[in-house]
Amino acid sequence: MTLVSLPGQSWVDAVGPVDGIDLMVWDLADPPPDAAVEVVVPHYMRPADQLAALSLMPSTRVVQLLTAGYETAVPHLPPGAVLANAAGVHDDSTAELAVGLALALLRGIPDFVRSQDSGTWLRPGIRPSLADRRALVVGYGSVGRAVADRLVAFKVSVTAVASRARPGDDLVATVHGVDELPALLPEHDLVVVVTPLTEATRHLVDDRFLSALPDGAVVVNIARGGVADTGAMLRHAGRLLFGLDVTEPEPLPHGHPLWSAPGVLISPHVGGASTAFEPRAVALVRSQLERIGRGEPPLHVVATG
Amino acid sequence: MTLVSLPGQSWVDAVGPVDGIDLMVWDLADPPPDAAVEVVVPHYMRPADQLAALSLMPSTRVVQLLTAGYETAVPHLPPGAVLANAAGVHDDSTAELAVGLALALLRGIPDFVRSQDSGTWLRPGIRPSLADRRALVVGYGSVGRAVADRLVAFKVSVTAVASRARPGDDLVATVHGVDELPALLPEHDLVVVVTPLTEATRHLVDDRFLSALPDGAVVVNIARGGVADTGAMLRHAGRLLFGLDVTEPEPLPHGHPLWSAPGVLISPHVGGASTAFEPRAVALVRSQLERIGRGEPPLHVVATG
Repeated sequence: MTLVSLPGQSWVDAVGPVDGIDLMVWDLADPPPDAAVEVVVPHYMRPADQLAALSLMPSTRVVQLLTAGYETAVPHLPPGAVLANAAGVHDDSTAELAVGLALALLRGIPDFVRSQDSGTWLRPGIRPSLADRRALVVGYGSVGRAVADRLVAFKVSVTAVASRARPGDDLVATVHGVDELPALLPEHDLVVVVTPLTEATRHLVDDRFLSALPDGAVVVNIARGGVADTGAMLRHAGRLLFGLDVTEPEPLPHGHPLWSAPGVLISPHVGGASTAFEPRAVALVRSQLERIGRGEPPLHVVATG
Repeated sequence: MTLVSLPGQSWVDAVGPVDGIDLMVWDLADPPPDAAVEVVVPHYMRPADQLAALSLMPSTRVVQLLTAGYETAVPHLPPGAVLANAAGVHDDSTAELAVGLALALLRGIPDFVRSQDSGTWLRPGIRPSLADRRALVVGYGSVGRAVADRLVAFKVSVTAVASRARPGDDLVATVHGVDELPALLPEHDLVVVVTPLTEATRHLVDDRFLSALPDGAVVVNIARGGVADTGAMLRHAGRLLFGLDVTEPEPLPHGHPLWSAPGVLISPHVGGASTAFEPRAVALVRSQLERIGRGEPPLHVVATG
């Protein structure tokens, strides 16, 4: 039997019994258990520093995250342990927030909220539609594909960009390499950033990136705050519109100029924080544990300790 | 040659020459022209009372609206004239606003705007996703279909309702009749109202309709204010969420309780007011004038004077 820790009793109840697997509860906020836990599933919403407890678990050979991002767990992996992310679990939730932020910015929902609070019926004006936008999805993993899938339904033309060029799929004719960005940016007026945060993507969205975009273009960041240079965004705010589910620093402190920059809409890192999460997370954990119970390696491995 | 009035020189330029058609400019805000105008295209955004000028045009045999709604034009049709609406022109623009209002309400964008204005990073909480909603699209014409098409991309299950039951299409297995609403409402948690305003649909969304919906359900009205009973919505506000692009009265006066009712998001009747409108409207007018120039009857006739 393989001993697996889940972050709460509700997870144990929801995942249910799995052949070859013993389930126990361990929340990384609590002291490490004495038991030889082989598979650890940390809680979804916990401060990154709690992940340091992983390094105290020499028996652990698999860490299964419930997040898509994984950069904060990598430094704490026990030697030889593999790290699996929650690939697919957050696709629907995050993709719909990205589209929601773009729609809100384009059609003027923040203005409507503010005029509603003052009881004022705004004189209608013509706003940009989401339809007919030319979108660049930067980062074309499972969340990027989910974003593209929704955008196509809105009659948006979608161009996909990933770290390296590769053939396309049923949504895009080709996936462009990130080196093609300088040529692509001027031809697009909606950018959705959904790359992992790595050394290669840190401040990918910088002054040069933003300067290449046409006036009125919308930039949505549902990746990590560090993928965009906050200072550069502040310089382009107003000329461009920004929908930011993630920021740098994060949480954004009181008084930070990004709060009041023109054309900026901020959501407090809630891409995955919806009811879409739980059923998909339970299904992923169960399917990974079934694999491990059968002696198969886990899927979605993103790093090794 | 058939004399056709368009509401401005920019429309004449955009539509361009059409065989058998003479184009002239007439904005209904100006005095009626002496000429025998056979086809009148009123401006898209004008107070309804200006449409009374149509009744002074005995030579007119076709009135081509640039709106989907047409109830305000019917009383002013010259005898024998046919009224055509802008079927299809507003589908993309209105459908995306409906989805935008639903997404904003579900994922909490109005809260984010308000906390942004106070410079506060909200503690993230779990919000309902659009994914997994069970949506009822009430009114299944071209806008209703466009709404359904987008919702399906968000993994929403869609049930369509129209004035009469009929077979389904590629999006829904069947179209239910409006008499089935009492049985359908309790099984749905997102309602998008997109019916024309007629005597049959006035206050269709009343206390009985709303009482049948489960707690937390979202009602989006992109039809006409009169399709919903404002008093009933006020009684259910908070238990239900409302995204209203149209209101009764409209514009909503300063101090009206709907402005500050809990869970209500109001946009100032901007469903069609986006950049998606113009290219689609120009294409529709041109195609109708080509038909008329060939001696064929116009499409999209919704009433006769």
